[in-house]
Amino acid sequence: QDAQVGRQKAQACAVCHGPQGIATAPDAPNLAGQPEVYLTAQLRAYRDGTRKHEIMSVMAKPLSDADIANLAAWFASIKVEAQAPR
Amino acid sequence: QDAQVGRQKAQACAVCHGPQGIATAPDAPNLAGQPEVYLTAQLRAYRDGTRKHEIMSVMAKPLSDADIANLAAWFASIKVEAQAPR
Repeated sequence: QDAQVGRQKAQACAVCHGPQGIATAPDAPNLAGQPEVYLTAQLRAYRDGTRKHEIMSVMAKPLSDADIANLAAWFASIKVEAQAPR
Repeated sequence: QDAQVGRQKAQACAVCHGPQGIATAPDAPNLAGQPEVYLTAQLRAYRDGTRKHEIMSVMAKPLSDADIANLAAWFASIKVEAQAPR
């Protein structure tokens, strides 16, 4: 898979998931730094209907396996650091 | 909701989602800094079966609305910073 190709493809995702994968919509998850295996599984689930969402089901429908692999590689490549409150 | 109560409750989640909400299991998502509305919706979906996962369906079943609100508040309170590769 190719994270740079995924980065281009991910421009369509930025409107809800943010340009850096930190969600801009309150009901959308952050995708930045999510494990690649998890992202691939969720995109496939939305594509085959085992996971449903009014927007994501539509977004995932046309994705090829390569698209999914590249998108997952891109978002997984974004480094995240977490800081729990004291 | 109460993030500190959620923090205690979340000890059970750490085994897959990590002590700071950064996933330790490859097929589990990071929860750190996820939007509260999103987290609440997912826990409810696992609890009522509209979203299914062999582990999460079991974990969510006994959660009360207050448990879900506290867990969501806790994970949402963890600050995350994202750094996309050049």
